[in-house]
Formats: sequence, C-alpha cells, structure tokens
Amino acid sequence: MQINFTPGPSQLFYTVPDHAKKAFKEGIASLSHRSKAFEAIFQKATEGLKELLSIPSDYHIFFTGSATEIWEKSIQNLVENSSTHLVNGAFSNRYYEIALQLGKKSQKIEAPLGQNFSSLSIPTYDTELIALTQNETSTGVSLTSEFILQVREKNPTALIVLDAVSSLPYPSIDYTKVDSVFFSVQKGFGMPAGLGVWIVNPRCIEKAEKLLAKGISIGSYHNLPTLLLNAKKNQTSETPNVLGIYLLSCVVEDFLRIGIKKIRQETEYKAAILYQALSSHTLMKPFVQDASAQSKTVIVADCGEHAARISSYLSSHGFNPGDGYGEKKKSQLRFANFPAHSKELYEQLVDLLGKLN
Amino acid sequence: MQINFTPGPSQLFYTVPDHAKKAFKEGIASLSHRSKAFEAIFQKATEGLKELLSIPSDYHIFFTGSATEIWEKSIQNLVENSSTHLVNGAFSNRYYEIALQLGKKSQKIEAPLGQNFSSLSIPTYDTELIALTQNETSTGVSLTSEFILQVREKNPTALIVLDAVSSLPYPSIDYTKVDSVFFSVQKGFGMPAGLGVWIVNPRCIEKAEKLLAKGISIGSYHNLPTLLLNAKKNQTSETPNVLGIYLLSCVVEDFLRIGIKKIRQETEYKAAILYQALSSHTLMKPFVQDASAQSKTVIVADCGEHAARISSYLSSHGFNPGDGYGEKKKSQLRFANFPAHSKELYEQLVDLLGKLN
Repeated sequence: MQINFTPGPSQLFYTVPDHAKKAFKEGIASLSHRSKAFEAIFQKATEGLKELLSIPSDYHIFFTGSATEIWEKSIQNLVENSSTHLVNGAFSNRYYEIALQLGKKSQKIEAPLGQNFSSLSIPTYDTELIALTQNETSTGVSLTSEFILQVREKNPTALIVLDAVSSLPYPSIDYTKVDSVFFSVQKGFGMPAGLGVWIVNPRCIEKAEKLLAKGISIGSYHNLPTLLLNAKKNQTSETPNVLGIYLLSCVVEDFLRIGIKKIRQETEYKAAILYQALSSHTLMKPFVQDASAQSKTVIVADCGEHAARISSYLSSHGFNPGDGYGEKKKSQLRFANFPAHSKELYEQLVDLLGKLN
Repeated sequence: MQINFTPGPSQLFYTVPDHAKKAFKEGIASLSHRSKAFEAIFQKATEGLKELLSIPSDYHIFFTGSATEIWEKSIQNLVENSSTHLVNGAFSNRYYEIALQLGKKSQKIEAPLGQNFSSLSIPTYDTELIALTQNETSTGVSLTSEFILQVREKNPTALIVLDAVSSLPYPSIDYTKVDSVFFSVQKGFGMPAGLGVWIVNPRCIEKAEKLLAKGISIGSYHNLPTLLLNAKKNQTSETPNVLGIYLLSCVVEDFLRIGIKKIRQETEYKAAILYQALSSHTLMKPFVQDASAQSKTVIVADCGEHAARISSYLSSHGFNPGDGYGEKKKSQLRFANFPAHSKELYEQLVDLLGKLN
C-alpha cells in the first residue's frame, strides 16, 4: 500500500472509505438534491465548516465543481474592470490569467519563485479585488497572517479574496479581514476530488448584485445571488456532487471530534521535523529559505540531480512524494502535510530521508 | 431497501457500489489527474462512450461538473448574439433563461405542456444555435429522430445542440445530424451525481475559436479550446471528479458487455408495459397522450387527486416514484425507466399498479 504525499489529490483521510461505503449502503450516493435528507447533509457540512474554521455566522458557504471554477466565478461576480493578483507561483498566476480570459484589465504583482512579497512596501492598490494565494501549491510559499492583515489595512475598500486551496483546515484565518476564502476538498480534507468550497461575506453578494443591476453578466446557475437563493434552503442550483458534500460533512465532523487545535499542533510538529531533516540533509534542502514564508502544508525540497533517485527510494518504501511543479519538475520534490498524514508517517518519512545522508 | 424511480438522481446501476469499492481499495479515489493511470481511465471512458453510442470518431467528449454547467458553457462558446430554444417544459426553458442571463438575445418557441412541436411547420430559424431537448424530464415529452432530422434539414448552417440528459444511453442518435449532445451521469448511467458529459463536433470548436478571435469571452478553464487541448492528452483542465470519470468508464464497459441493442429493447419493453398499465388504469393515465411524443425513459402519469395515495402505496412496497414537476408536483408521478431498472422490477411495478384498479 502506497501513501500519497502528492499535494493534491492527496492521501485520503483514513475515515473516508468507510463514509463512502455507508453512503452507498444507505442510498446517499443516489439521493435527490431536492430532498429533506440532502438539505440536512448540506446544513451539516456548512455549519460544521463554520464551527471548525471559526467562520463568522453572516458568511455564506457555497459548493462548486472545483476551486478552478471558483477562480472563474469570483472574477465574474466580483470584478467589473480590474483585479490585482499577488503572484508567487504557477497557481496564483493562473488565477490572474483567468481574469484576463474573462476580459478584465487585471494586473499582477510578482514575487521571485520561492520568495514572498515584502510586507514593508504594500501599496494601496487601485483595484476592485485583491487576489492572494495563501499557500502556493507549486512552490510551497505561504503568506503570513500579518501580511494579509497589512494588505487589508492598506486597502480597506477592495474585496480581498484568499485562495486557501492547499492549506485549509490548517491556517487560522481571521475571516473578518478578508471577503472571500476558497479551497478544494482533495487536499487538506483528504477527500476524492470534484468539489470546491467557496466562502463569501455579504460584501461579495452586494458587489455581484451591483454588477447585475448594471447589466453586466455574472454567469448563470453559479452566480452569487443564485447560489445564495438556493443555499438559504440548504440546496444547490444544479444537481451537485451529493456524495462529495456528504463525505465533506462526515470529514468535518471527524475533524471537529479530533479538534482543530490538535490538527494545527500536529501539522506544525510534522512540518518542523521535515524542514529540520531537509535543512541538515546532504542531498536536499528546503526550496523556501525564509522560515516565515515556508508553507506548513506543502513542503518543497530542492534535490537537484538527486530528485528522481530520492523519489524512487521513498516509493520503494511506500511513500509517494509529489514531483516538483513546472520547470522544477525534475529537481524538486513536494510533500503534502495534511491531516491524512499522521505524525507516525511523518516520523517514518524523516527516518527514511535520514538514511540517505 | 427502496428502489428509486425518480428521474434523477435515480437508482444506481447495480454494479456501481462494487466499482466504487474497488476505486477506494486501489487508490483511484485519490489518483492524480496528471498521472498515466488517470489518462488511461479518461481514454477508456471516452472511447467506450464512442463505441456504445456510435459517436463519430472526430467528435470530442469533455467532462464538466454537471449538465447545468454545459447549458452555460455551450451558450458562452457557441453563441455570439442569439440562440433559439425549442421549449416544451421547465428544463428546456431553463436552458433558454441561461442564454438570457449570459446576455444573449435569444428566443424561445414554446409547445403546450405535455405536447410536442408540429413537425409540419419547422421554419428556418435566423439563429446561430438551435437548442433541442431530446427528453424533457419535467413532462416526459420526447422528440422523435424524424423531428430532429427535419430541424437539421431546414437549418443546415445553425449549430444544433441536443440536451439528452435524461434519455441516454437509450436513444439511437444520428450524431452526424447534430453538432453537440450532452447528458449527466445520475440518470441513464445510474451513477452518483457530479459529472456532466459534453459531446461536440469540430464545428463547435471552430465556432468557439471564431468568437475568441473576435475578442468575445468564452469563459476560461472550461472553454472549448482549453477542454480540447487537455482532452487530446486524455486530461482535464482542472482537478476533476476523478472517481466519477472512473465509475463512468466502468459502467460504460458494463453496458458494452450487455449490448446497446439489449438495453434499448428492454427500455422499450418496460416503457410499453407501463404505458399500457397507465392507459387502462382507473386512477391514472399517461400525461403525454400522443404516442410518438411519449418518452421511453421518463414516463409521466397524471394521477389527479390520487397522486399522494398512489405514491405512498408504491413506497410501502419499496418502489419510490418521482413527484410531478413544478405545478404538477401534487397531481402527477414520474417513473424513470433507466438501465438500472430491470425488467423484473418494472413487471412488479406494473403488477402493483394493477392492484390499485
């Protein structure tokens, strides 16, 4: 049995196969999305997420097919002319490119690969929306809470949208300081892919309604007013991934039982031992050098010419790391550090890496 | 154990729970969408569908989150100014409304509820796209092959898009006479919801590229050129519902083993005995009176004041019919007739209904 350390789709959380089995046994896999039983599942998932992540009660939670879809829908619903994208890797750049594809005059501010934005020089952007990627899956660079707060202070009126695709449930986000946060379930929530989760505050709804009133198209079944209209009934606009929403409601319940504090502590412990192992290793080192920018959930190792050898060595012991991304495909390895990866697994991983020294 | 006769999500095809079990056991539920193993699944699903449904080799098959998404994407990618929608129920009307939401100057031609369009008066529409709903899930009205061919003959240049959401795999469609066909998997394919299947010909790709060249936004990750670019590698633009695509590849293989001819014959047999039972019943009658317009896959019964009583009687025997749709919710019942509903089940259903006479 191979353990999947790729940053997404990643290892399933250990309870997921049993939840799925129950879903098939009890008819949930073919449940009508207009039934009371579905509404109860929707409510359990959204209320559970609010409790787990301390999301304010007036924020809304919607479901899409993917986080990629949320890139598109957030631009369509929240931007009339221009958004500003803080780009520090391939995924934050793709969010920017989607804004261009949708005809917006958007701009990007770039940080060098593997580094972060200087918090000393945050300007007031002349923009409707600032897109921040809390955790850049391609490079393992993470924005600090302090940085996000400073962007908010300098930009009190712009909508701030935070891509937390590969970090949640780990980071403790002050949701009152951002307007929208989103993630997908095949990473930190350890689920099969096919579901995006979009959290928005009332300012986002107002903006979408304002665009609509101006005659600007904000899309159809997944525009914010339509999503809200259905979510108020604990329903969705379309026939959704019912099984996915059910599995999410179960995993959130599992995470609540474990406790978010413990999940965060274990994530930090696992990140600490892996960064320590990489820093003292003879064949590899952390790609992100600035400790404050080092992601706790996607840990990227520079391995130079040794990447393929280290990867096959780990795989032969049942540990599958992710390749590097893009131009770093052959010289880096990426290690997901999600709740599905136990402390024991991480200790074994670090032991294995130690034997390569 | 209740058998689900609702027209979607409907009863799971009997092999699906075992396929899902295997997917979890063998790591497919957390498989990377950039792996060779995923590419093989994508290829098996699309090639299997082409074989099962006799889709021409130069047509492309893409995956989305839902058929609702295909309503949106087909308008965005295939219509610059105006589409024409043949509306004979709530779902064909929703497709029309989505075109309006996307800012198109679209028109609709309406047939009375439960009836079909007269094939004698098909005009040449001044339109870029003609939207036909092969099987209207809300009313159980189905378009004949002859009607579709006549629309084509009168309109050789317009793109014809066929919504076959609740009819495939049953109908034998001449794909060379339409430009695009789509469906969702939670109906005739007996799968959990969360996946739409979009079939397009090269004319659709050309039209999307033409709009793009004119500077018109055709969306981002799910526009046709991007879908095609990825599908050529047996991949998807985003992290998709991998489990759904895998289950589809398995169900298509099962259907190929059974044979499309047998599936069609059994569908017709089951439809014939249910329509016969309804026609001779004292408490209910077929809603669609014109035999040529009667759907074989969604059979709608007018039950007047008896609907609730008939529904609970059937449910007490383990048969769950669907309610009527919209204004007919309390006076009609809908029966899905999909491959998941065996001949034996339909014979039992007809027997049960007979006892109510």
